[in-house]
Amino acid sequence: MAHEHSGTAKDADYQAAITDLLGVLAYGELTAFTRMAADSDLAPTLRLKADLAGLAAVEYRQFTHLIDRMREMGLEPEAAMQPFVATFEAFHERTAPRTWLESLLKAYVGDGIAKDFYREMAALVDPGTESVMNQALEDEGASVFIVDVIRDGIRKDPSEAGRLALWGRRLLGEALSHGQEVAAQRPAMSALLIGADADLVELGEIFTRLTEKHQERMAAVGLSA
Amino acid sequence: MAHEHSGTAKDADYQAAITDLLGVLAYGELTAFTRMAADSDLAPTLRLKADLAGLAAVEYRQFTHLIDRMREMGLEPEAAMQPFVATFEAFHERTAPRTWLESLLKAYVGDGIAKDFYREMAALVDPGTESVMNQALEDEGASVFIVDVIRDGIRKDPSEAGRLALWGRRLLGEALSHGQEVAAQRPAMSALLIGADADLVELGEIFTRLTEKHQERMAAVGLSA
Repeated sequence: MAHEHSGTAKDADYQAAITDLLGVLAYGELTAFTRMAADSDLAPTLRLKADLAGLAAVEYRQFTHLIDRMREMGLEPEAAMQPFVATFEAFHERTAPRTWLESLLKAYVGDGIAKDFYREMAALVDPGTESVMNQALEDEGASVFIVDVIRDGIRKDPSEAGRLALWGRRLLGEALSHGQEVAAQRPAMSALLIGADADLVELGEIFTRLTEKHQERMAAVGLSA
Repeated sequence: MAHEHSGTAKDADYQAAITDLLGVLAYGELTAFTRMAADSDLAPTLRLKADLAGLAAVEYRQFTHLIDRMREMGLEPEAAMQPFVATFEAFHERTAPRTWLESLLKAYVGDGIAKDFYREMAALVDPGTESVMNQALEDEGASVFIVDVIRDGIRKDPSEAGRLALWGRRLLGEALSHGQEVAAQRPAMSALLIGADADLVELGEIFTRLTEKHQERMAAVGLSA
């Protein structure tokens, strides 16, 4: 399970970066799990309640894969997650859904951005960590049911379209500013993502890619982004 | 997968009873899942948050086993759960935890009573359904971590002991009155549990056994019941 940097100063940087990366992903999955599970109480039918609960359970499974990977690497999962508790809490406070459709769009958009981020990172990490990223990406289809439910909601009440489009824009904005905050606080992880000598322009390029993917997803549910 | 009553009037009664039984267990697991997941936000440490989230994930797995069993039998899971939505909602409203230890004790007590009920029912159902009951009982150890956490909480603040003992009594009372309400509303299921010609005395005997088990569990966490 040793990776190519072992024993060098670069190795210490990599360890710090990967600890942060696994910590932020794991805590992101854990909070996604609790929010989706709680939000499933807003579902208008038992079927939808069970569907959103199922999506939450997938997030929990991804959380356990990340935790297992940390333990394999000799990392302490709680310590790795701790630096991200406050920013995630602030993010979720700023994006607390008021309606069932808002909570669904949050699950869909949040999961989509997270998966895009997994994809960005997968190429940059050691094979053992990469396989955990790929496991998460395999579960990507789990949120597909949301597309139909949101389209259906808009068909039934067309006035939802404008409200939800705004909500989607707000979610992206909050997610990116959350990402920026994390990047600023955790230089080792940012260096892994954009290179140690990179500037904010490169971070901006990643954000541009994430924004494009977000727009495609919003279009898929019939919303302007 | 046919059971011994097929094709008789008794068969229709059994189908109605088993539909109710699987429906009430499944909806119980689904609400336990959402409540535990939401309550995990109250956890004082990340480790405990992850532990309670893990317990919630086990409840979700049991939910999927019950749903799979219903589909195998040609039952419609949402229709089977629907009759129990209002009573569970009322139960959870009456037992909303105000503190982390209250939420833990609720998870521990609720899971314990549910498992005792699975045990009572396992002997009374067809082999296919019995194996789903046994799967749930295999997961019984998942809530064991709670014992140490509550004992620890009482050690750190002995004034918690009295409050939590009262809370435990209240949880049992609410669970039993919830059970009584469900039994009264669903005669087919009650007949399966206590026999068609049985009276409330026999239901009382089951409640006595559940109460004794509850007292053992309360003693295990160091609380008087």
